[in-house]
Formats: sequence, structure tokens, C-alpha cells
Amino acid sequence: MRIKLTVAYDGTAYCGWQLQPGMPTIEGELNKALSDLLGKPARVTGASRTDAGVHALGNVAVFDTDLRIPPEKYLYALNSRLPDDIAVQKSEEARADFHPRRAACKKTYEYTILNRRTPLPEYRNTAYFYYGSLDVKKMKTAAKAFCGEHDFAGFCSSGSQSKTTVRTIYGLSVNEKPLDTDSFDGRLLECGRKIIMRIQGNGFLYNMVRIIAGTLIEVGRGAIPSESMEELINSRDRKRAGATAPAKGLRLIEIRYL
Amino acid sequence: MRIKLTVAYDGTAYCGWQLQPGMPTIEGELNKALSDLLGKPARVTGASRTDAGVHALGNVAVFDTDLRIPPEKYLYALNSRLPDDIAVQKSEEARADFHPRRAACKKTYEYTILNRRTPLPEYRNTAYFYYGSLDVKKMKTAAKAFCGEHDFAGFCSSGSQSKTTVRTIYGLSVNEKPLDTDSFDGRLLECGRKIIMRIQGNGFLYNMVRIIAGTLIEVGRGAIPSESMEELINSRDRKRAGATAPAKGLRLIEIRYL
Repeated sequence: MRIKLTVAYDGTAYCGWQLQPGMPTIEGELNKALSDLLGKPARVTGASRTDAGVHALGNVAVFDTDLRIPPEKYLYALNSRLPDDIAVQKSEEARADFHPRRAACKKTYEYTILNRRTPLPEYRNTAYFYYGSLDVKKMKTAAKAFCGEHDFAGFCSSGSQSKTTVRTIYGLSVNEKPLDTDSFDGRLLECGRKIIMRIQGNGFLYNMVRIIAGTLIEVGRGAIPSESMEELINSRDRKRAGATAPAKGLRLIEIRYL
Repeated sequence: MRIKLTVAYDGTAYCGWQLQPGMPTIEGELNKALSDLLGKPARVTGASRTDAGVHALGNVAVFDTDLRIPPEKYLYALNSRLPDDIAVQKSEEARADFHPRRAACKKTYEYTILNRRTPLPEYRNTAYFYYGSLDVKKMKTAAKAFCGEHDFAGFCSSGSQSKTTVRTIYGLSVNEKPLDTDSFDGRLLECGRKIIMRIQGNGFLYNMVRIIAGTLIEVGRGAIPSESMEELINSRDRKRAGATAPAKGLRLIEIRYL
């Protein structure tokens, strides 16, 4: 039976998803837990090889098993064997020919910026701290240019093995979320805000979401005009886009198979 | 000049606020950073000696200095010398006789419960994971009984050095915050909820907030009737209250001096 796992993790302590001998990886931890459970060496096949420091709410992995455990029970059996920065969210039966990397899907990522005067320890590993002022309205305007089918050659780090740099973006939103908190005496404790960029596409090039995040930050701080975004994308010039934003702000939210 | 610091921290890696030789503590880290900055051994005096694993958004500490640095600049000078799980949020001049533990104040704490089917790695150190169903309405009802002046002898761990067990609670709220997230195609990604208990008082006995949280959890799961809360408080019997909820769900939000 093929089992599909939906996996959440805090990527801070790991050298990314993909197995690397002698290094802590998400895949390595899942393989260890699975081998212990099945009583023999076993491996998962993952959907998305997230980079070091990148987090996930819903990455996907599969494995095959002969055990007669009900599919939904693997969740608990694996979580009890995993470190607490990795937690399976769902386990279910998949078709025998389902391959998490080859099947067509929509992927959703989030990029979180902590935008306030001083860093907050609570978000040190899960958001990119940026103290400068950011114009969210301009970022929203620029975001529209990314939607639809485009050649994203300018939003790709070298080292990508993709055959084509054309991708379809189904949605790109930028929202702010105030962290302010009410006091019991009617005062507001000012805590700054998070700016959350959320993107859904049929796939992403190497570092593409982080380069889009870095570019929208440039727009927000006024260094790139929001109206130039369409032209910038079409230029296919990596040098015109913003820097690759830090890994820790990135989170793979969902992989939805079609 | 006396300088008042407002300090945020993630308490996960520390044996609490209070200095203990050979152990990592918040106070110890602040003393190290301050001594380095002032160029001589120096110590801070803190307001609240939070326990191991407890977090803060706004604990308070003071120190005296002869340096002619503007008060608001200590923030940056200290943060550049502190580990990233401790971050000064504000530095300002205080009256020479201001003592953060002796001055009258209102303290606000928050207790966070992650209430969903499976744990989420992102909250593993900052919320108490509880998978059972909790009736927030009942918890809200029970919360009302705590407000006002009461003898909280039943909500105090042994080892407390307080002269009196009478405290005044200005407010106790219980709120749920859905973690669900919208997809671009109109679907809702169900992510469960956080239940946040927030309490403000003129002071708290040892473990008092955590015992109140533990008691409200008992109410929420139906083990203690919400109507019995007043009687339970008045009984002054520690055995009738709930267990001390885990430290990691607790966060000192604000100390407001009157």
C-alpha cells in the first residue's frame, strides 16, 4: 500500500529536506522514524525539496508498506518517533502510481516579514526581520504583475535544473497583520506588524519565491517602482529583480494535487 | 543615570530569569551584554523572575550607568551584544529611586493553548498543545469569577514567599483565534485554533497564572463545572484547582507602572 503523508516542520535545525549523508535533514528524520516503525530500512519520496531553514505546513511525502496498519494511524506512529520540530499532519492511502513530484499540482507558499522597530525573539526563526518602512499598497500593486503565465527566468537562481522557466501563478497576495494587542484598560500595546506575501503557482523555479519576496521588499521601500514590474519580469534579467530574501521567512503551505 | 529596559525573550533555552551560577538565564545574558557595553562588571535588576521556559514580550529591568549614551540608544547597543532569543524593546531614563520589583504596577500575562488534532512544530515552544475538545464558552464563564480581589491561596504552588495570598485581578479574558487559512480557490485550509487566556492583576503568586490556566482547561474539557468557580476559589484549596499548565504556554506581556 502506498501511503501519502502531509508533513509540517520548522526547518531551522535542518540542512533542508533532501537527504545528505551526515547532515540533519527532514527526509533523513522521516526515513529514520519510518524505518523504526516498519522494522527495516525504508525511505520516503518527497514532493518539494525545501532549502535549509525553510519551513512547511504541508509538504508531501509517500512510502510503500506491507503492514496492515490503517493508513490514518501512521500519523501517530510516526509522530511519536519524530523530533518535535517535525510533525506529520495527515496520513492517507494514495494510488499505487501516485508520485508526489511528478503529479500535477498547485503549490502555495507564504513569505513572512516582521516589520517593526526591533526584532521579536518569538519570530527569529520564522520571519524575516525588516525595520525599514514598507509601502504595502505599492507591494500589492506590484504583486498583480506576477499573476498568470510568465517566463520567470529573471526570478531564478543559477543551479536550477528546470527545462523551462515558464510558470503559471494563480495568485499573489500581500497582506499586513498587526501584532498590536489590546490592554484591559483600553490602551493599545503597539507591537508592529507582519507583512505576509502568499503565492500559488503550478510550480516554482529555484529560489523563485524568495526572489519575488526580495523584489516586493524593494518595491515596498521605494527602490523599484511598482509600475515597472511587468517590464522587469519580461526582461528576464536576474540582476533587475531584488535580492533573494532569507530562507527563514519562507513556508510551504500546501501542495494540492489536481 | 538609571535606565529602564523593556525586554522580550523566548525562554525556551533558559533556566528562567534569575541568575544561577553556571546556568543559562535571561538575567545572566543581560548582565554579560551590559558588562561588555559598560566595560566593567555590571548587573541589571529585574521586575519579574519568570520561570524556566516562560517567555516575555515586556519584562522590565533597570541598571545604573555613568556613560553619556542617550537612554534610547542602549536598546541598539545591548541588542547587538545579546543572543537572538533575547531582544530589548525599549530603553529609557527612569527616576533614580525607581525599583522595578517594588513599584506598584499592573502585570499582564497570556497563556496560549494550541487546540487542534496534531501538534504544529512552529508552536512547539510557545504554546501548550492540547488535542481534546475545549468549550471556550464555559471557560469564558468561569473566567469571570477570578476578577476582583480574592484570596488566591488555592492557586499557588508551595514555595511561595508572599506575605499575603490576596491579589486583585483587573481582567481575565479567554479568546479563540482560528489558524485556518484561505486558499486562492476559495477553499479553507483547516488549521485548528489557538485559545488565548489573558490576565491582568496587581501581582501574581508563584505559578498562579499557570494554575488558573490549568483550571480553565479542566473547565473547558468539562471536568470542573464553570458555575463552581467562585466556590472553588473561596475554598482556598490547591487540590481542587487544576494542574499547573506547562511553562511554555506562558508569556509576560506587559508590566505597567502606576
